[in-house]
Amino acid sequence: MRLIDSGLEILSTEECQDLLRRATIGRVAVTVGTLPAVFPVNYALLGDDIVFFTGAGTKLRAAVDQAVVAFEVDDFGATPAYGWSVLAVGRATEITDGEPLAGARRLRLRPFAGGDRSHLVRIRPEFLSGRRVCTGPVAD
Amino acid sequence: MRLIDSGLEILSTEECQDLLRRATIGRVAVTVGTLPAVFPVNYALLGDDIVFFTGAGTKLRAAVDQAVVAFEVDDFGATPAYGWSVLAVGRATEITDGEPLAGARRLRLRPFAGGDRSHLVRIRPEFLSGRRVCTGPVAD
Repeated sequence: MRLIDSGLEILSTEECQDLLRRATIGRVAVTVGTLPAVFPVNYALLGDDIVFFTGAGTKLRAAVDQAVVAFEVDDFGATPAYGWSVLAVGRATEITDGEPLAGARRLRLRPFAGGDRSHLVRIRPEFLSGRRVCTGPVAD
Repeated sequence: MRLIDSGLEILSTEECQDLLRRATIGRVAVTVGTLPAVFPVNYALLGDDIVFFTGAGTKLRAAVDQAVVAFEVDDFGATPAYGWSVLAVGRATEITDGEPLAGARRLRLRPFAGGDRSHLVRIRPEFLSGRRVCTGPVAD
């Protein structure tokens, strides 16, 4: 844990992975044409990979194109003086068969809505960072 | 309100604006070099514009460059069967003086952390969309 700025700490990779493992809702940032877009997803970790189910659409196209996407999770209290966020950046891939798909199905991972949302997208984090808001003094 | 898919509704522009007005924490998606990134911010609406204070860094650079950024707010319950999200896309601009800066200061809008976070960034939404997860039947 390291204080980077007044009231902000950098989280270690292990802390980021732990927070990613505990949260269940994250946000995928992709580029649609030349415009950025962000979509919330219900996700889980499969090993160190972020996985979620989706239907045909922007998120799936990013995966099929193996685009580099950003994935963010956070939690903030009622006051803005408390909270954390974790950012993962990595390539998105659609997983169509094999052990990863069977593993994701065992997770009982449910997309937000019904309909055909059976496409499994995996993001393999290549870059992971996190910050925590801290109002008091922090040990280095 | 219009059902677009099993369990998902499209929100009207007015509903999106209302939800944007009520929330206080959102996420800005920007491109850093060629990589996407997402950062949470404590924000407010000034008229129809999204405004937040930030320090020197990625978000401010996006504003100085007048980049088109995505801004997302959402709220999901403990179960993934309930929730909504709103996505705004627009150009980010740093506001350095005049009435908008005075107006933002009157909002008592506080950045998450201390330090020098006195730069005001404005996102003027050019595109606004929202979705609500809905498990029951919805009137059209």
